Amino acid sequence: MSVYRLLISCPDTHGLVAIVSQFILEYNGNIKEAHHHLDEQNQHFFMRIEIESNSISCSLDEFKEAFSVLAERCNMAWKLSDATQLKRILIMGSSASHCVADLLHRDHEDELEGEIIGVLSNHSKLSKLASWYDVAFKKVSISQDTQEADKVKMMQAVDSFNPDVIVLARYMQIIPEEMCAEYNGRIINIHHSFLPSFVGANPYARAAERGVKLIGATCHYVTANLDEGPIIEQDVVRVDHGDSADDMKKMGQDVEKITLAKGLKYHLEDRVLTCNNKTIVFS
Amino acid sequence: MSVYRLLISCPDTHGLVAIVSQFILEYNGNIKEAHHHLDEQNQHFFMRIEIESNSISCSLDEFKEAFSVLAERCNMAWKLSDATQLKRILIMGSSASHCVADLLHRDHEDELEGEIIGVLSNHSKLSKLASWYDVAFKKVSISQDTQEADKVKMMQAVDSFNPDVIVLARYMQIIPEEMCAEYNGRIINIHHSFLPSFVGANPYARAAERGVKLIGATCHYVTANLDEGPIIEQDVVRVDHGDSADDMKKMGQDVEKITLAKGLKYHLEDRVLTCNNKTIVFS
Amino acid sequence: MSVYRLLISCPDTHGLVAIVSQFILEYNGNIKEAHHHLDEQNQHFFMRIEIESNSISCSLDEFKEAFSVLAERCNMAWKLSDATQLKRILIMGSSASHCVADLLHRDHEDELEGEIIGVLSNHSKLSKLASWYDVAFKKVSISQDTQEADKVKMMQAVDSFNPDVIVLARYMQIIPEEMCAEYNGRIINIHHSFLPSFVGANPYARAAERGVKLIGATCHYVTANLDEGPIIEQDVVRVDHGDSADDMKKMGQDVEKITLAKGLKYHLEDRVLTCNNKTIVFS
Amino acid sequence: MSVYRLLISCPDTHGLVAIVSQFILEYNGNIKEAHHHLDEQNQHFFMRIEIESNSISCSLDEFKEAFSVLAERCNMAWKLSDATQLKRILIMGSSASHCVADLLHRDHEDELEGEIIGVLSNHSKLSKLASWYDVAFKKVSISQDTQEADKVKMMQAVDSFNPDVIVLARYMQIIPEEMCAEYNGRIINIHHSFLPSFVGANPYARAAERGVKLIGATCHYVTANLDEGPIIEQDVVRVDHGDSADDMKKMGQDVEKITLAKGLKYHLEDRVLTCNNKTIVFS
Repeated sequence: MSVYRLLISCPDTHGLVAIVSQFILEYNGNIKEAHHHLDEQNQHFFMRIEIESNSISCSLDEFKEAFSVLAERCNMAWKLSDATQLKRILIMGSSASHCVADLLHRDHEDELEGEIIGVLSNHSKLSKLASWYDVAFKKVSISQDTQEADKVKMMQAVDSFNPDVIVLARYMQIIPEEMCAEYNGRIINIHHSFLPSFVGANPYARAAERGVKLIGATCHYVTANLDEGPIIEQDVVRVDHGDSADDMKKMGQDVEKITLAKGLKYHLEDRVLTCNNKTIVFS
Repeated sequence: MSVYRLLISCPDTHGLVAIVSQFILEYNGNIKEAHHHLDEQNQHFFMRIEIESNSISCSLDEFKEAFSVLAERCNMAWKLSDATQLKRILIMGSSASHCVADLLHRDHEDELEGEIIGVLSNHSKLSKLASWYDVAFKKVSISQDTQEADKVKMMQAVDSFNPDVIVLARYMQIIPEEMCAEYNGRIINIHHSFLPSFVGANPYARAAERGVKLIGATCHYVTANLDEGPIIEQDVVRVDHGDSADDMKKMGQDVEKITLAKGLKYHLEDRVLTCNNKTIVFS
Repeated sequence: MSVYRLLISCPDTHGLVAIVSQFILEYNGNIKEAHHHLDEQNQHFFMRIEIESNSISCSLDEFKEAFSVLAERCNMAWKLSDATQLKRILIMGSSASHCVADLLHRDHEDELEGEIIGVLSNHSKLSKLASWYDVAFKKVSISQDTQEADKVKMMQAVDSFNPDVIVLARYMQIIPEEMCAEYNGRIINIHHSFLPSFVGANPYARAAERGVKLIGATCHYVTANLDEGPIIEQDVVRVDHGDSADDMKKMGQDVEKITLAKGLKYHLEDRVLTCNNKTIVFS
Repeated sequence: MSVYRLLISCPDTHGLVAIVSQFILEYNGNIKEAHHHLDEQNQHFFMRIEIESNSISCSLDEFKEAFSVLAERCNMAWKLSDATQLKRILIMGSSASHCVADLLHRDHEDELEGEIIGVLSNHSKLSKLASWYDVAFKKVSISQDTQEADKVKMMQAVDSFNPDVIVLARYMQIIPEEMCAEYNGRIINIHHSFLPSFVGANPYARAAERGVKLIGATCHYVTANLDEGPIIEQDVVRVDHGDSADDMKKMGQDVEKITLAKGLKYHLEDRVLTCNNKTIVFS
């Protein structure tokens, strides 16, 4: 069954659910699944509604146009998308391949609600993997000395892919502020620690040194503040004294893969809304 | 903020969300949280709506009466409850005390959305624990020879407590069919295995014998079919070759406590609906 | 640091640890890690000892020969292996590719203590994937009508690879008894349920129907009794009412991958001993 | 079966396992379970050996005296204890009762390898709970103004209990350095976050603010550096956008209880050794 997905975020006022569902009903829309959440602290209301596409009595564009009037009246931030329109995913990686290979394989098996349109890296290593999966590969080196110019080239390369969502699959480079702004809410990173533990570099080594009993990974939206963006998903795995920093790195890679795949899935299925620096995930 | 909770289960038809939210709006009700779920296989629709009590422009009884008209029209099974009206909880136990002590302590700390009004057991062992927590205790022995008559007495004792929900906290006795019917959807059991593994007696011993690497517990509604009722919550814990059946029993008790407490919490907060033999838990 | 690994299983008698460690000391061996476990029920003793290879004052063959005398005296089942000698892994798959792709990628990244020497399948689908990773691929069809003859061919193909360990990565065919016997303790299967729940076919559909709140996967040694062999590793993932059997299948595939990879890792690192139908995993 | 437990920590040298097991054999000791671990970075060796008490041919004191000679030769830190000698546990709490009640109930059910000999608090609230369980209660108030003098009184009270191990069950007061030194390796704290996340006060509020998807608890030995001592055990639980800081606090309390109970269990069973600021837990 194909569906439209309506995501709404707005200041709380009386009758929001009624207004929106009444609107949908006027267009004969059949609601399949709906979630509503009030953030009491911020008095902000969030909705996610799945509507059977076939039940709507007009085109998607007409439906959007009509809804925009209501949305303006209620001061809504909103998005209405057709689930059959696959999102264009750009993967950015470096030399580590575990997350990239995992996502490429999921794409290959039609497991993602999206299509990977390219792999962009500052190394050549992932080139062969991308070509195996018939996905475009582009390399833009980032040198210490020419960093600024390199990053401009990188951003041009990103734009040339015209992506809907960018996945930093262990890209290991800081994203320029202007790119964070341009793709706000559409860049997803996997951090190799259970944030806010071990912000920054070498989290596994630091986890081993601290002697923690669980290590983890964090999938989050990228903002200008490194490792501080809204968290979409996290998970952990048990370690013990017999595990070296290197063992933890290997074990952690499995958590990274799964956590990134889950976070991306939520994003692709339009399940994530943000409120200040937090996410609402309607799963 | 005090809320009313509206639980609805009905055949899917067009405009259900609109109809219900419109109704609530007519009474000036403010929706705080709402979940909607369509079971596609059964074409059945499920809703849970939290409404600010203060926003409703009439009494709860009037609101209920008005809603009943709409409910009948849409062929709804429904329940509308005031969250400030604490549910009356009757605990039934035997000799094992871990779950009973855990629940009594939660009640004592005002952690439950309900109040424990009594402990009923076929043993005396829990008597002291109940009295510590100032909770009524009643013993009804169940003997092999006089089982039928004993169970009639037990059911009379249960009725005398006039409970809203009955918690079998390792009660270890089969519940008569007529009691299952009378309290349908209101008897919660904790089974000491990860169902459907190890249905029946001595699950820990059988888990140890089979050499499983995780053991678990299952919180479910009680039906006439032993261990077959709708599952509300499950959890597991890791074990290894060094753990004997006895170790597993001890480790499993912690999972039992937590799983029962969670399942009961969902029930007390009116988060659970059933569909055939499955639960929808709006958490 | 390269190590020898000594695995011992024998009837419990006095002084076993002393005898073995004294023997190792006579050859100047340095013990790096050691685990000992007494199964009290069976009065059977299990050891796993890692010895620095360089510290041993003779060749591995001489060391083995000397040890065999001691082993016979104590009625030991034992294995002494050089960790630098990678085990030869044969993967058997069918049409599902998630586990196969995951293992091939781990091999490609040198993450396994072993090398994948071939993929054997009853379908052609995995052929391309194997060739990407430069791994030999062989197809042996299994037809309903010519099953017995086909399986003989399959076993011949298996033998031709001369594998140390065989991984059934969702092979979906019953393994003949004689093959179970020939490769006893060296065939590893991933079953797509949390055994002993949902033994047999279609576990995800049955899990969805039963309404369980966790689904899982089980990695076990293959014996002539289907789904009944010694369990090496298990894991689970949380599901809810919104997840269809198909969603569970997708979510379960991640658990299958990770659980199979862990179980195989334990085997490759000589961490697994069996006692009746259970495993001792020295992790 | 009653056992002696031998814990050893020493610089790595050749033949340690042989020397120790040979020694045990000389006294006719039967080893039931043994773990050995080499910390490669520090070249330090750790052992835990369980010996059947009945098999030893002399008294525990004679055995200890004999072993001390060997221990001195190998520069060992060691401890030899009789598992039947229950450790004396002092619980220190404040006003929160969940951990204290949980431990008291476990003690009451003879689940601990130790006996709770007293509850010490700076509040009266736990007094009734302690008396229910027939455990001595002592209150020593800590006032902002007279903190130093109060803490001296507190330490005198602690000493008067003559405890083997002190459990800070949400005591919420900083432990004086001299007490940390006196009971080094014998004070166990439960911190209500997944350290090193949210070190310090109000971790649940900060977790809610950061929008993490898992919250946790950490059981660790207390050192003079607040929240920085060696971690014994950690665990986490999943939370989502619907959970307020207050919900997290409630959910976290269950993790605190279980994690503290596990960490204490490991300590009581002499399973924990420390290496710099990390623990080796032989489980």
